[in-house]
Amino acid sequence: MEITHIEHIGIAVNNLEEAIPYYENVLGLKCYAVEEVADQKVKTAFFKVGQTKIELLESTDPEGPIGKFIEKKGPGVHHLAFAVENVNEALADVSANGVQLIDKTSRKGAEGLNIGFLHPKSTLGVLTELCSDK
Amino acid sequence: MEITHIEHIGIAVNNLEEAIPYYENVLGLKCYAVEEVADQKVKTAFFKVGQTKIELLESTDPEGPIGKFIEKKGPGVHHLAFAVENVNEALADVSANGVQLIDKTSRKGAEGLNIGFLHPKSTLGVLTELCSDK
Repeated sequence: MEITHIEHIGIAVNNLEEAIPYYENVLGLKCYAVEEVADQKVKTAFFKVGQTKIELLESTDPEGPIGKFIEKKGPGVHHLAFAVENVNEALADVSANGVQLIDKTSRKGAEGLNIGFLHPKSTLGVLTELCSDK
Repeated sequence: MEITHIEHIGIAVNNLEEAIPYYENVLGLKCYAVEEVADQKVKTAFFKVGQTKIELLESTDPEGPIGKFIEKKGPGVHHLAFAVENVNEALADVSANGVQLIDKTSRKGAEGLNIGFLHPKSTLGVLTELCSDK
């Protein structure tokens, strides 16, 4: 498996209405897209920082993954996403190295990327996503 | 303030001896430096992923910042570091926007960078570092 760059950093926030002005006005970044990902029960906002995107995640349901994360840990970095050439090959690679997978094969994520998650129990506490461009 | 890219992502780990083989053998990244930062009570290991470094942080003292972080939250992403042209100007900028600073002026961090931390209470839960190249 070859990771080319950090595709995005997922950050759980209490609400986008408060978070977008912080990222725009204080950090000077530009929100270029807001998207709802219904099956993940989140609304997302995207910013570009060099090669990497920041993906803010607001929960739309307390029982969804971000709702539960914020209840347990508070807002903050939720996951790291590494860009690879082929997600299914990369998932098979890491699985062969003993990593527990959340997604056994890739699925569609925000922005139409092919994505797959690794379990943080196998990745030293960092919820890790592998993804490839459209 | 203009952020050019994500300089590094700091990740708290229980020990480098376990973490370096995971990042090298499973993720396929290459550790290019190990450095002790005595005043932060950490040993660090660095990997390059595109424009961004991953900085693994092992505590050398349970009373140090990483020791306390792991006790409270467990291993995982500890901070994000954004590259800026001039750290002191950037610290003054964000302070003028109401952000509480941990470092009022820049100091030397790992790899000889000029760095300054913002308080996570002011940054929506993300411990944030600003840094500039040597």
